[in-house]
This record gives sequence, structure tokens and C-alpha cells, in this order.
Amino acid sequence: QGILERLDAGEIVIGDGGFVFALEKRGYVKAGPWTPEATVEHPEAVRQLHREFLRAGANVLQTFTFYASEDKLENRGNYVAEKISCQKVNEAACDIAREVANEGDALVAGGVSQTPSYLSCKDKTEVKAAFRQQLDVFMKKNVDFLIAEYFEHVEEAVWAVEVLKESGKPVAATMCIGPEGDMHGVSPGQCAVQLVKAGASIVGVNCHFDPETSLETVRLMKEGLQAAKLKAHLMSQPLAFHTPDCGKQGFIDLPEFPFGLEPRIVTRWDIQKYARKAYDLGIRFIGGCCGFEPYHIRAIAEELAPERGFLPEASEKHGSWGDNLSMHTKPWVRARARKEYWENLKPASGRPYCPSMSKPDGWGVTKGAKELMQQKEATTEQQLKELFQKKK
Amino acid sequence: QGILERLDAGEIVIGDGGFVFALEKRGYVKAGPWTPEATVEHPEAVRQLHREFLRAGANVLQTFTFYASEDKLENRGNYVAEKISCQKVNEAACDIAREVANEGDALVAGGVSQTPSYLSCKDKTEVKAAFRQQLDVFMKKNVDFLIAEYFEHVEEAVWAVEVLKESGKPVAATMCIGPEGDMHGVSPGQCAVQLVKAGASIVGVNCHFDPETSLETVRLMKEGLQAAKLKAHLMSQPLAFHTPDCGKQGFIDLPEFPFGLEPRIVTRWDIQKYARKAYDLGIRFIGGCCGFEPYHIRAIAEELAPERGFLPEASEKHGSWGDNLSMHTKPWVRARARKEYWENLKPASGRPYCPSMSKPDGWGVTKGAKELMQQKEATTEQQLKELFQKKK
Amino acid sequence: QGILERLDAGEIVIGDGGFVFALEKRGYVKAGPWTPEATVEHPEAVRQLHREFLRAGANVLQTFTFYASEDKLENRGNYVAEKISCQKVNEAACDIAREVANEGDALVAGGVSQTPSYLSCKDKTEVKAAFRQQLDVFMKKNVDFLIAEYFEHVEEAVWAVEVLKESGKPVAATMCIGPEGDMHGVSPGQCAVQLVKAGASIVGVNCHFDPETSLETVRLMKEGLQAAKLKAHLMSQPLAFHTPDCGKQGFIDLPEFPFGLEPRIVTRWDIQKYARKAYDLGIRFIGGCCGFEPYHIRAIAEELAPERGFLPEASEKHGSWGDNLSMHTKPWVRARARKEYWENLKPASGRPYCPSMSKPDGWGVTKGAKELMQQKEATTEQQLKELFQKKK
Amino acid sequence: QGILERLDAGEIVIGDGGFVFALEKRGYVKAGPWTPEATVEHPEAVRQLHREFLRAGANVLQTFTFYASEDKLENRGNYVAEKISCQKVNEAACDIAREVANEGDALVAGGVSQTPSYLSCKDKTEVKAAFRQQLDVFMKKNVDFLIAEYFEHVEEAVWAVEVLKESGKPVAATMCIGPEGDMHGVSPGQCAVQLVKAGASIVGVNCHFDPETSLETVRLMKEGLQAAKLKAHLMSQPLAFHTPDCGKQGFIDLPEFPFGLEPRIVTRWDIQKYARKAYDLGIRFIGGCCGFEPYHIRAIAEELAPERGFLPEASEKHGSWGDNLSMHTKPWVRARARKEYWENLKPASGRPYCPSMSKPDGWGVTKGAKELMQQKEATTEQQLKELFQKKK
Repeated sequence: QGILERLDAGEIVIGDGGFVFALEKRGYVKAGPWTPEATVEHPEAVRQLHREFLRAGANVLQTFTFYASEDKLENRGNYVAEKISCQKVNEAACDIAREVANEGDALVAGGVSQTPSYLSCKDKTEVKAAFRQQLDVFMKKNVDFLIAEYFEHVEEAVWAVEVLKESGKPVAATMCIGPEGDMHGVSPGQCAVQLVKAGASIVGVNCHFDPETSLETVRLMKEGLQAAKLKAHLMSQPLAFHTPDCGKQGFIDLPEFPFGLEPRIVTRWDIQKYARKAYDLGIRFIGGCCGFEPYHIRAIAEELAPERGFLPEASEKHGSWGDNLSMHTKPWVRARARKEYWENLKPASGRPYCPSMSKPDGWGVTKGAKELMQQKEATTEQQLKELFQKKK
Repeated sequence: QGILERLDAGEIVIGDGGFVFALEKRGYVKAGPWTPEATVEHPEAVRQLHREFLRAGANVLQTFTFYASEDKLENRGNYVAEKISCQKVNEAACDIAREVANEGDALVAGGVSQTPSYLSCKDKTEVKAAFRQQLDVFMKKNVDFLIAEYFEHVEEAVWAVEVLKESGKPVAATMCIGPEGDMHGVSPGQCAVQLVKAGASIVGVNCHFDPETSLETVRLMKEGLQAAKLKAHLMSQPLAFHTPDCGKQGFIDLPEFPFGLEPRIVTRWDIQKYARKAYDLGIRFIGGCCGFEPYHIRAIAEELAPERGFLPEASEKHGSWGDNLSMHTKPWVRARARKEYWENLKPASGRPYCPSMSKPDGWGVTKGAKELMQQKEATTEQQLKELFQKKK
Repeated sequence: QGILERLDAGEIVIGDGGFVFALEKRGYVKAGPWTPEATVEHPEAVRQLHREFLRAGANVLQTFTFYASEDKLENRGNYVAEKISCQKVNEAACDIAREVANEGDALVAGGVSQTPSYLSCKDKTEVKAAFRQQLDVFMKKNVDFLIAEYFEHVEEAVWAVEVLKESGKPVAATMCIGPEGDMHGVSPGQCAVQLVKAGASIVGVNCHFDPETSLETVRLMKEGLQAAKLKAHLMSQPLAFHTPDCGKQGFIDLPEFPFGLEPRIVTRWDIQKYARKAYDLGIRFIGGCCGFEPYHIRAIAEELAPERGFLPEASEKHGSWGDNLSMHTKPWVRARARKEYWENLKPASGRPYCPSMSKPDGWGVTKGAKELMQQKEATTEQQLKELFQKKK
Repeated sequence: QGILERLDAGEIVIGDGGFVFALEKRGYVKAGPWTPEATVEHPEAVRQLHREFLRAGANVLQTFTFYASEDKLENRGNYVAEKISCQKVNEAACDIAREVANEGDALVAGGVSQTPSYLSCKDKTEVKAAFRQQLDVFMKKNVDFLIAEYFEHVEEAVWAVEVLKESGKPVAATMCIGPEGDMHGVSPGQCAVQLVKAGASIVGVNCHFDPETSLETVRLMKEGLQAAKLKAHLMSQPLAFHTPDCGKQGFIDLPEFPFGLEPRIVTRWDIQKYARKAYDLGIRFIGGCCGFEPYHIRAIAEELAPERGFLPEASEKHGSWGDNLSMHTKPWVRARARKEYWENLKPASGRPYCPSMSKPDGWGVTKGAKELMQQKEATTEQQLKELFQKKK
């Protein structure tokens, strides 16, 4: 059954977690460029991560094609030891995802994301060409549906959806925005409306903000759609990091990004709360983005097991709410084998000299920068440097 | 070259990271029993983790035989869906480790750890039999050397070393203790002396405490050996969690163990400090235990690259001290591409309602319990339960 | 010169600090009722506190008549060992304030605050009678001007201003509200407009929120006045406690209120920032409320000494920005004798098991309660009890 | 009844709180020099503070003669606007203390503290002369007993006790040390032994550390005395600041000293725990030092009211464990009128960007400095400067 059949039937669809962060920690992706040439260089590592998400309960395996547009790969080409073509990266990604999807009950989704072309002010034709190049591979490899994800500007997201719709396959679209809306100041509600009008059947958010903030953004999208009398399925794939202290651009501006985020990693219990809250909000495509490891995806599947009627495979290695601890040798650890314990735990940081919140860098803090944001971003590359100089 | 040849020549040997915690998050190990039947059930997952550690710079691949003694597997047998023999688990572990070791420059170490037999007061003969059963597999599979690790009581560790020494292969021995010594109150210095006298060529600590605390324990071991005019190589494989607030038994007593430890995870920069400090202390076998992911092992290899003369393979995906960030699109993120930034970062927890420190459960907090510890632990299983009842 | 002459001439007028909190700690006021019978029982203690504020730089001494309306004193009468008449309390307060004001350059302001009569739904005539009774004493004792302060409902504040205006003396009016407005949902801007229309020459906020939040509220008042083309002087007398985590009703709902607020006390350096920011916002009547001790008032006077041209008397015992430390015996303490040090200090709490933020009780957290707030408060006294029962 | 009669009879004697910190905040003492010329300049302010402590339950009023030796006043003379003689300062202090003591049931204790003469290596004769000059005033004014307090070196404390004993009056001696002992490395137990041998009838600690740490130091003193078979009454007057992160020299080395300590101020409930713990340890002279305000002293008297059989006068304005809150208008504040609430409250700091602990400056952190401490301090004044230069 296809993605829309499932969602139309009221099924819960569980997404997978974040590849670039997980594979960076495993040694296969570079922080900074974040490009997916590992599909060609180390297919076994990509395959294993897909398999873990599948086993954890994911119903959708996204091809590992994040930032795999040709302009991005070129742009970051100096990082790639041996030049690997855009086509090869995308093809390998499709093959690996399909291979693992066939091991279980999962759909393959071909994914595109925001492009340097847009940010550097290339026109609509050129930006669309970048998406179309990836789409050609997805069609050749016959993915099950398509996702346009990680867009900061709704204008570019709309262009992506328009290209993907040419395929005739279902299209989902998520933006990496918070409740304040996109980088041009378009509200979440308006973003959702534009995406659905462009042809997306599923809309929502991914990345940049923690689960709680992301759900608030999806709620605003839902309101916008209702006000416009439009219908679409809702989707959320947030960070697995706590980010209550973020500005408009999300976790990128936090001083800890990307190499000091550890104390912010959410627990499996945080994810269970997220899954329940997402479900109650009417979201039926529930997954994760950066920071989500397989055990976080499993937590979604475990929380929603009563609604779905089954547990994921990986739950054979996990008692719900810690109940395997009942066999621990220390009696006080055994006493932790219950829901109330984990649900109410306030973990310590174990870092006494560190504060609870950060002051974000970047646009989060200066008014002038916010105004700058109203203008075209490409023209501000130089302005931004100047801004940054002034800040120092 | 063997482990002792390398260490005797002054080489730095890098260990691998923790399997049970990493594979629990990937969906292949149960928290609570922590047994390694995944070697038979999901060899591809175990193989991939070995490969990531190898690629990150590990020179030693430990067979995934933690808690793989027959008594432990039996004891926790109800967790294993389909009974898998102790022999099969240990054999598969050896095969997988050897297969990956051959992909690079690494030694295979067969490992044993503390047994339920000892804790339940079985006599020396019976406890030794459990170790000998695993040793038989290691000899058949011809591992390069042996490690007795994760012992809370030096008496049992000595018995393990005595058995392993029968093989004629080099033996390393590490205890999961802190500066206060073993659970019978034997000081770290005394523990080291007993282990070396029993035949260990390499001694140190693993698990239970954070890097800083663990190094203090190894320092005390070193002092003890010097005072006794004994010689041995030093080894450390600590947690990748901050635990400044632990009691004598380490992180197990922390309220967050094992499902809420996320805010305590150390950063790669914390590990670089640990690697340097370990080196300066004279430790030459430097690795990690629970919480160590491949990127933590890579951090050891990167910090000590000047001394070793080369970087690990996985560094092709990692600029030292964040320097790949110099290509980031946001100028303030680019400004993070320098050592001073990451070295001095005090990360926020992003959890404003949570405290910085925990009050440990268990023996860490009660005087009566500490006294109880002086007695034989097996007899206290019942007493402990009573103690726990009283505590509630 | 009167208060309006000073403000019209562009002078900075410094208010005094909070009496009920300071005298509670000194042993003369009861937390809970917070009534000022100490003016009769222990005049020397009240006199000394006035004197310290005067010496610290205060240009206005408010009569210690907070909660000194007859209905409040009656209401809390069971706390007053020996019944003291409302008139005696108010007269003594005027005499003490005048006596100390004559020791320096300060005006005496007679003050009224919100009444139980209003909260229990008495009509306008009855509420106004309570204010008029206090006003009679202020006129007899010939105070220099009048302040209506600590009002949660603008309706009652307007009634108070109307009564005080009958005297012909200048009237200042401050509400204990935050940026969300009064307890009926009237915005700060609208509150200011109503108060000025009722006759107040000076408007602003006091109590309930920290300096930063209070300044934001005054900024909104200023905007409201500008939009309505009304003119008035601005005034701020915030808490000396950090309250970033407050709900709409301010610090009363924080779990620490009133006996565990110590870790929130602001430093003198926080106050210097507040004074500067208040000045930059155009506020010229700058003082404090609960938590403000004499050294906090001195910090206002020291920060604004360049604009005012002189230091307060108490600065003879205080070098600006810690410069007296230059004579300390320890060299590293001497190194703290500079502005940059204190300006940038992030103090530690010294309480490792405590969090950085609180979850407020009360209306701050429940939606139902907020809706309840829209209704008349007097009728909700019973409803509130029920609400509270439900919450438990 | 004299101090020894009371203590010998098993009475609890309550000390007063800290003058220099309280009067600095009120505007009468300079931080840095910390000298008590206010006894002459502003007697009404000193008198009022004495009165508040008396009212809070203090049985001993210490003359405000801290740092009032002639060499200290000279040394810091440039701070005193108008030269006031050492004799005048001490005489005024005695007169004020006696005047207030007569208002209730309190003894007057003449106090001496460490001298610059000792720190700058003057010989025993000269140092003793400084103490004798103050003692002459105490004898002329006929104080009830004598206290030698705030000594970092037991050698100087012994000299002080020897001088004070010449008077024939009872002598108490407290040092400002922690569990690590005095600045020459003499243990608390040894310090106590030397002080008792020199003639002190009461020994203990004051200042520099928080209540918990100070009680541990007194416990060590008690052990030392028991081991030496000596008898003395015990006394504690700690800080009212939390200082778990202090080094050997106490709070002076904390970065927040002295102008950013606010978040560390202990609550009245912390003090009730301290009072109970002090009592259980056998201490019968229980008071406070820097940071103790009248309400902290009242908390001692309230906690020990069952043992003493009466409440202090100021409790007429304080219900025990918050019970006056039962009359508060908000029901959730009323719910705080109980012991369990305040006893278990973990207050928030309200400062999200601040850490829980500090890294102390000074000797607390460098090993070299600790060794330096073993040598005579006077010779290290220069060395310290150099040390400090090197540190920067």
C-alpha cells in the first residue's frame, strides 16, 4: 500500500531518524558540508543505519540524498576526496534504501532539500533544474513517493513541490521552521497553504527545533489549512535535541552546534511524550531528524503500539518503560522498572559549571539582522560578513 | 606485532568503545541483562560497530563477549527468545572481530568479565570454570591476547587473571572501580599490585566512572605499583558520561542509569582532554567503555596524532577542532572553526528545570550500606533487599 | 521643589526600596498579611530603613502605609497582637517619613494600594471610602504628593487615582502587572491611558516582576500613551528578584514565594544595568519594590551619577564597580576591582541540586484558571478554592 | 548569668549575625577594608542592627570591633574620611552593644580578630600589643566575656587567646578555617587543642564556609579534643552563603566574592537544618557570621524553641514553617503554609545562563600556591604578586 492509502486509512506512519548526524558520529559524514557521498564510499554503513531504523519501526526509508543536488556537491567538492557524480550518489542511495525496505514493511521516499542555487539568488528555472536532476534518478529507481524537506524559504519549497509533482507520485513537504515562520517572515499557516496549493499531499516540519517547538509549528500549519479550507496530512520530523533557547533560525545558532550538543539529547521518554502529543494533534506521519537514533524511533513505535496493535522488531530488545530492569542485580535499579519513574525523572546534567540555557549567536539576537532577513538572502552574504565583523 | 611488543616499544594503543550501550541504542542489546547474543542473532550489526571503531582508530577489537559466561547467559536466559549456547555466542564474537581486524591494523582481544557465580558465592573452582569455558573458545579461535575487565572485586579479577594466564597469551586486567577502591575496600594501588602479581601485564580501569575520575584511579594504581616496585603497562577505558556526583559504585547508582543519561554524554572535546591527560600520566592503552561511540574513539586518535604520526581513517570525515565548519553558510558558525572555541565551550543543557547534579541511590548514600559492603556480597543479596525496603 | 517641578525640569528622581520584605527579614513585618503596624509598634526600625534609603540616594520617601487601609488591617486583625487603629498606623507612617526626609533632600509621598474591598466585590463607593480614609491622614500630615501603587486591576487603580486627585496634589499610579496586562486582560498601554485620563501625572509599574520584565511593561505603557497622544511621566519600581519564569501574576505564583527567593536576589550590578536601561527608555522616576535593599538603591544613584552630577551619601562607603577591592590583601581579589569583572560575572548558585527555573503554581499554568480570570474575581474566591482542590 | 554558667548548665546560647556584610548593604561599611568606624560615624545604624539580632533571639551581642585593631585601622586609614582613633571606635562599639543588651537578656562579648601585623611578619610582642590595646577598652567598658575570632593561622589565634586570658574573663576562640585546617596546614583537631591549651573555654569556627562545611570542621575539632582528652564548649558561626565549591581559603576565592554572592544566600529553612545539626553535634553556642541577617538568627531560635522552651520576640512576626501564609489570598500560596513544603523546596536560581558551581580563584586551584602556603605568609606577599602575574 502506498503512503496516501495508508494515511487515508487512518494508519500511523512512522518516519526514520537523522542520517547526517548519526553517520557523522559513526565516521562517514562531514559536519559543515553534510553531504551524502557515503552512499558510494561506504554503502554498508548507510545500509546498516537504514536497517536499524526499519527494525526500530520506521515505515518509510528516506533515500540518503540530503544535500545531494549537484550544486551542493560541487560547492562542497573540495571535501570529497575523489569526485563522485551527483547521479551516482543519488542512484546508490535509492538502491540501498530499496534493498533494506524489502527486508520489511517499508516504503522508499526520494528526498530533495534546499539548494545553494536558491540561496545565491539563481532564478526559478535554474533552481528547478537542480531538483529535476534528482527526480530523474528517483523515477528511474522507482521510489514510492517523494519528500521535499529542510526548506527555510517557502518560495523554494513551492518550486520543489512543483517539480516533484511532475512525476505523478505523492509528494510530502516539510520546512525547517519554527512558530515564527520562514526566513522571509511567512507564517507557518501561510507556508502550509502555499505548499498544499502547489501540490503537496502531506505537509509539516523537520529539523531545526526540538519536538515540542516543532509540534507548535505544525499546529499553526494545521490552523492555517483549516482557515483556508484546505486538506492535507500532517507530518513532523523534529530534532532529538532540547532547544528551548533557540532563536528563529533554530539550533544552528546555538553555541553548541554542531559539536557540543550532547547535553541536549532527548531521552527515549521525551520521545514517547512527543509521539503521544503528535498523535493527539492529528499528525499521522511521525518521525525524526538530526539527533534521532534508532532507539528514539523505537520509542515512537512503542508509545503508539496500542493504536497500531503491534510492537516493532527491535522491541524484542526493549521492555516498555524500562521493565527489563526488573532483573537487575541491584534492588534500587530494579525499582526503576516502572513508567512513573522514567516519566517523572528530571535528569541531571552532571556538568556543574555549565548553565541551563545558551544565548544563540546570529540572527536570533540582533534586531538589525532580523530586518536584514526581510531582504533576499543571497544579497546579504556580504552584508552578513559585515554584520558579523561588527558583532565581534 | 603483539600487544606487548607495541607497548614495550612505547607505542600508543587505542582501544575500542562500549558495545552494550551502543548496540542497545541501535536495537540489538537489552538493558538490564546486557548479554551479547547479538553475535549470533545479528552479526551484521556487531560487525558494523567493530568496523566503525577500527575506522575511528582502534588498534584493539575486543570480542563482544561481555557477560557471555555460561552462568550469566543461563541466568538471563529468559530474555533470549531462542536459547543460544554460550559456546556459539563466544565463537561468533571471535569470528566477527577477526574478520574486521583483518580489514586494518588491529589486534583481537578475547574478553571475560565478572560472573554471577562469584556474586552468588560459588567457590573459586566453580568461578574459574566459567572463565575457562570462555578461554577454550578464545584459544580455539586464536585471539591475540586476553582482557579480564569489569570486575568490582579484586579477588574475582585475580582468579580470572590466573585462568587466562594458563593460556600463555598476554593478559590485561581492568576493574570498574573508582578512587575509593573495590567493593571490599581494597585500594586501587593494592588492586593493581594483586593483579600484576597474578600475572597481568597491563592493568587499569574500565567503566563505572567518567574519564577524569578514572584517570585518578589509574594514577593511584600507578602509585601502588611504584611503591611495590612492580612494573606493568597502564590502561584506561572509562565511561563517556560525566559522573562527578557518583558514589563508590559508579554510575549505576545515579538515578538516570541507564535510560536518562543523555545530558551527561561527553563531547569529542572532553575526550581530547582525556586522551592528553591519560598520555601525560603514562597510560599507553587508551580506550573507552559504555557511552563511547566511534567519534569518541576518533577524538583519542586525533588528539594523539602528533605523537603517533598519523590520523585514523575516519578523520577524512572530520577536520581537527571543527575546521570543516569554515565552509558553513552562516558566518557565525564559520567562526566556530577553531580550537579555542570548542576547547572553552561550556555547553548548556537546554533543560532549565533540571539540576546539575544527582543524588545517587544505593550504597552511595547510606552508611549502613557501606558497612554491609565489607561483608561477602553474596550473603548480602537478601540483606540488600531488606535495606532497600527500609529505604523506601 | 515638588515632584512635578523636578520631573518637568528633566531631573532624575530616585525612589526608595521595598519595606515589607526588608522589614520582614529584620523581624518587624509578617509575611502573609504584610501589614505595616510596625509604624506604631517599632518606629525606630521603620525610621532606620527610611534613613538608609535616603542615604542611598532616594529622593522620595514613601510613607509605610502599604496595605494600611482599614479593611485590610481589620481583615488581618487577628495578627495584630494589640489592635492599632488604621488612623494611628497611617499617622505614624507620615510622621516618621517626614522626620527622615528633613534629614536630606527628599519628598514624602503618601501611598495607597489595592484593597480587600475591591477583591471581595464591594462597590465603587465603598472602595473609594477606604482610599479616602487614608487620604484624610495624608492631607492632615501634608505629604508632598500621592502614589497609588500595587494594583492588579486597572479599574480599582482608576478609582484610587480619582480619590487621590480630590486632594489637588500630584498623583502617581503604578500597577503590579507584566507585559500581559492586568488581571482582566487590559493591556499595559490601555492601563496607562486610563490612569492618565483619571488624573495621574506619573504612571508605571511596581512589584511582581523583575527589572527587565518591568521595563518591558513600562515600554508598552509608553507606546499606549503615545498612540493615544497623552503625556505623563514614567515610573518603575520593580522587584529585586530575577523572575524570567513567572506567569501572568508574577512572583507570587513561583514556588519559592515568599520564603525561598534568596537565589533570585539581583546583584548591585544587575541594578546598574536596570537603571541605565530605565533611563534610556525615558523613565525618570526610578526606584524599587520588594527585595530592594539600600545597596540596590545606591546602585541606581551610582549608575546615574554622571547624569545627575553627584553621588549619594552612602557612596562614601562604596567605590564604584568594586574599586575599594584594590586594597584587598589577596591579589586575585584585588583583580576584581574593575567594571569589566563585575559587569560580566555570571554568578554560580552554589546549589548543585537545584534547577535554574521554576514552574509557577496557580493561574500561570492552567488554561481553565485563565478563563476564570475573565470573570469577576470576587465571585471566584470560592471557585478558586474548588479549582485548587481539583488541581491537587 | 555569665557565658560559662549558661553553657555549663547545658543552655543553648544563640550568637548574633554578621555585621560587616549587613552594614555594607545598608550603606555604612566599605567592602575591602571592612573596618567598623561606623560605631562612631553612624551609631544609630549599628544600634539598630544589634537590636534586630537581640529581638531575633541572640543571647550574645558582639561589640562591632571586627578589624578594629590599630594597625588595621591605620592600614586602611585612607578610607576613613576623617581619622577616628582606634580607642574611640572600640569604646563606641562597647557602649552601643551594652545599651542594646540591656534591652533584653544578652551578654556583651568584646571581640578581636586577625591583624595585619601578623600577616606582615611582625613578632609576637608587637602582635600581642595590638590585641592588648583593644582589651584595655573591653576591660574599661566591662564586657561580659571575650571572643578571638576570624583567625586563619592558629599561631596568631593562640597569641590572641593568651592576651585575652590576662583579663580573667572567659575566652572563646573561633577560626575561619575549613576541614583542611589552617593556612599552615594545622588540622582543625590540632587547632582546637592548641586553643584550649592556651586558655580558651569555648572553641569553634566562624566565617569563610557554609553551615554544612563549618559543622564538619567543628566535628573534627571535637574529635581532636576528645583524642587529647581536653574539654571545651563548642561554637559555630558560619556564613549564610552556600559554598560547596570553595577551596581551602573559603569564599574569598570564589569569583562572586564579595559583590555577586546573592544566589548563594541560604534560606531560613537551610538555617533551621543547620541549627538542628549543630545541636545534635553537641554545639551549644550557635550563631552566624557574614550573610546572616536577623531572620537567619531567628530561624536558629525557632528551630531550637522546643529545647529552649520559648520563642524569640521577633517570632511574633513569624509563624513557624510559614504558617502565616494560611491567610494568604491565593489558595496555592496558602498551601505553602506547612513544614513539608519548605523543608523540601529546591529553589530555582531564576538565572538560566548561570552555572551551579564556580571555579575558585587563588590558592584553591594551584598546587604551587598550596606549597607556598607552607611558608611564612608575610614573605609571600611579593611571591603572591608574582604568582598572580604568572596566572594571568
